[in-house]
Amino acid sequence: MMSGITGELWHRINEKRGEYLQLLKSLLSFPSVSATGEGMEEAAGRVAEVLEKVGLRSDIFTDHGGYPIVWGELREERHGTLLIYNHYDVQPPDPLEKWTSPPFQPTIRNERVYARGACDNKGNLAARLCAIDLLLDTIGEVPLNIKFLIEGEEEIGSPHLSKFFQNHREILSADACLWEMGGASPDGRPHIYLGAKGILYLELHASEKRPDLHSSWGAIVRNPAFELVHLLSSMRDRSGRVLIEGFYDDVQMPDSETVALLEELSGFESEVRAIVGDEGLLSNKSAKELLFDLTLMPCINICGIQSGYTGHGSKTVLPSSAFAKIDIRLVPGMRPERVLELVKRHVERVSGGRVSVVPLDMGYPAARTHPSEPFVQLIARTAESAYGMKPIIYPSSAGSGPMYLVTELLQMPCVAAGIGDHQSNVHAPDESISIENYLKGILHVALTIVNFVPFMRGGVTPYL
Amino acid sequence: MMSGITGELWHRINEKRGEYLQLLKSLLSFPSVSATGEGMEEAAGRVAEVLEKVGLRSDIFTDHGGYPIVWGELREERHGTLLIYNHYDVQPPDPLEKWTSPPFQPTIRNERVYARGACDNKGNLAARLCAIDLLLDTIGEVPLNIKFLIEGEEEIGSPHLSKFFQNHREILSADACLWEMGGASPDGRPHIYLGAKGILYLELHASEKRPDLHSSWGAIVRNPAFELVHLLSSMRDRSGRVLIEGFYDDVQMPDSETVALLEELSGFESEVRAIVGDEGLLSNKSAKELLFDLTLMPCINICGIQSGYTGHGSKTVLPSSAFAKIDIRLVPGMRPERVLELVKRHVERVSGGRVSVVPLDMGYPAARTHPSEPFVQLIARTAESAYGMKPIIYPSSAGSGPMYLVTELLQMPCVAAGIGDHQSNVHAPDESISIENYLKGILHVALTIVNFVPFMRGGVTPYL
Repeated sequence: MMSGITGELWHRINEKRGEYLQLLKSLLSFPSVSATGEGMEEAAGRVAEVLEKVGLRSDIFTDHGGYPIVWGELREERHGTLLIYNHYDVQPPDPLEKWTSPPFQPTIRNERVYARGACDNKGNLAARLCAIDLLLDTIGEVPLNIKFLIEGEEEIGSPHLSKFFQNHREILSADACLWEMGGASPDGRPHIYLGAKGILYLELHASEKRPDLHSSWGAIVRNPAFELVHLLSSMRDRSGRVLIEGFYDDVQMPDSETVALLEELSGFESEVRAIVGDEGLLSNKSAKELLFDLTLMPCINICGIQSGYTGHGSKTVLPSSAFAKIDIRLVPGMRPERVLELVKRHVERVSGGRVSVVPLDMGYPAARTHPSEPFVQLIARTAESAYGMKPIIYPSSAGSGPMYLVTELLQMPCVAAGIGDHQSNVHAPDESISIENYLKGILHVALTIVNFVPFMRGGVTPYL
Repeated sequence: MMSGITGELWHRINEKRGEYLQLLKSLLSFPSVSATGEGMEEAAGRVAEVLEKVGLRSDIFTDHGGYPIVWGELREERHGTLLIYNHYDVQPPDPLEKWTSPPFQPTIRNERVYARGACDNKGNLAARLCAIDLLLDTIGEVPLNIKFLIEGEEEIGSPHLSKFFQNHREILSADACLWEMGGASPDGRPHIYLGAKGILYLELHASEKRPDLHSSWGAIVRNPAFELVHLLSSMRDRSGRVLIEGFYDDVQMPDSETVALLEELSGFESEVRAIVGDEGLLSNKSAKELLFDLTLMPCINICGIQSGYTGHGSKTVLPSSAFAKIDIRLVPGMRPERVLELVKRHVERVSGGRVSVVPLDMGYPAARTHPSEPFVQLIARTAESAYGMKPIIYPSSAGSGPMYLVTELLQMPCVAAGIGDHQSNVHAPDESISIENYLKGILHVALTIVNFVPFMRGGVTPYL
């Protein structure tokens, strides 16, 4: 049972439930797949329309050179400013046949909303917009300057976002930044993330200057699929440890206050086993060691691999080419350009120049905000009030985001909280969010906004 | 310049060139892809029609349970019988975009005929049918009993052919068998093959009991693509040597007369380099060692591999499954069922039960006819007359075919000769044959038929 301001806001959220689900659906009803370009031309305009409807002044920026950035502002000359980062682009929806309902037709089943982007990231954006609407509707104002930065290239590594930050540094000024993602445990405990990994996304191409041949030649002729297989298995051992020389050299090991956060994550192991099954983990490490690896260590993953004939039946062919897509997650201290150099050296040494390394973009480094920052404490307190449970604070997301632009370039604390859960299937078929988490997310953001100035100035949260 | 019978036949072949190309095109104008089933329903009937047109009595057998077998006979109660083996099924034509002209629209460019099956194996079938026509047209008879066995499942490993041999052993009786494939060097020297490797075709499947996940989980969660990559690289080293325990144990090493044939293959290395490029070979072995590996040793090849996202751009996904298609070429002494057992043991040991082995069929063993057999000498002599050059005799093809049914079950000598060349792109886009080789192939088969009884009975070749 919620009481006080929290209870009143929760009551009103539930009264407006239909309206808030409608706002969510309006964002989920169109494709915006940055990897393929599908729907991207219209998407920014549709997002800006939703912003205006809620009462924000919107702008669309294109001078950074990539897909448009939607900017939203509610400026009332208050004593504090919160920057909110989201993205409207989504991952490709394939394999389409694995979706229960079409990815761009939001569908409610069992109190969950299913659609590509439901969690990552249109659902989070919708909850934050609803929080603005909620405050305008209940207290008649938003007691804080709000700035929305909604980009269209997060899922392809945000290749042009740094340009935008350089071009528009002045409008980005704020006291803190609320980042895009987050969720809650199966038992309802909210998750807060104090950082994000960096990323480098590469393709590895092995090809021969000959056509596909009859596979009987395989006895003496090079097979690019085998070249690639030998290379990939030289890059990571069976326990997941990266074997590229120098890969771990620049890793800044986290301090004790940061590592201590992992002690709080008691339910983690059972959560993970619920997702991946009893035998789905790479190693038999303890829950704390797994968390350490997941949040605080770099890694390499094969996202895709393809060569030769993969249709029905048996075709005996010696392929002329093979490729793989791999992502490399970075932690503080690692620079993507340096890691690329190390990968290139490794590939050259192992493949003798037979495999080429093609970075799809230059990626970005990791970011972390220290747990001692006041903004971290504010987000944690409002989360506890909104969800009725102490939040779990992760020192970093296992995922990536260009958060370094905020922490490194703007030198601003940056924290992520959001509406996902263990069933959200982010980046996979049947992506979804629970309606419960969506509504709680609205409440959390609204409480953060109303308490922002009192807490950041005086360490108090009068409106809970 | 050709003289005697050879010259007369060659003259007549050139007069009938248009008609013989038309017969070839009639076989190349329809798909018959056993791997996918495309066109297979009509194909046997169309092949039988062509046989009847040439003057053979045809039958279609289906009691073996697979795609129909077309049987053709010209029975004149002569003192000798030649069994001729061909197949009307072809490899899948993909990737379609790499064909200059559509695969099932035979097209002539630069004195070559382009189509799927032009070489493997409809072109060979056409040449043999034209040889029958040629003899009926010129000498008015075919001085030998001829039996055509034309199957529809060679490209998928002939899974039902042994059943046909068991069911119809009596009609298969003959003195020797002319097998389906062969070709000539760039300088026009004909190739003859005294055997074929066996084959075992497998799929390897790695899959996890979870959906695709966001790739950030890759730090601690198993990736089936990496499982497969580690497994495949444990099966073969970088030089092509197979690392599966016991793999080479049953290999019957060839005798000196067989190995001596390799000495004659002087042009081999430059031929291979013309096809695969200077750096396309797996090792720096000598030409003779390469030939030994190619024709007399077993090998493993990746025909295809697939996992995760392989479309445009960067999708960060941790795939839930991965698979590969591999073929294993066998030599005399090796039994497919034993090799399958060894592979399963290896996969179990390396992957700990995480990868499953799925044989697409049970494959078949290798076959070889010894170089001292009279039928080998006949084919070599008629080849020398038809091509004007001493043939190159390979102890075995590098490729596979169910020739063991002839050599092992019927205990009959079996030799292959045909119409391909180094530009034939067998199993690949733009498959083709040269018209010159096609016409010479007709001549070679015709000369073999007319000299068969005299040579096999008295060691003479009066009709050259």
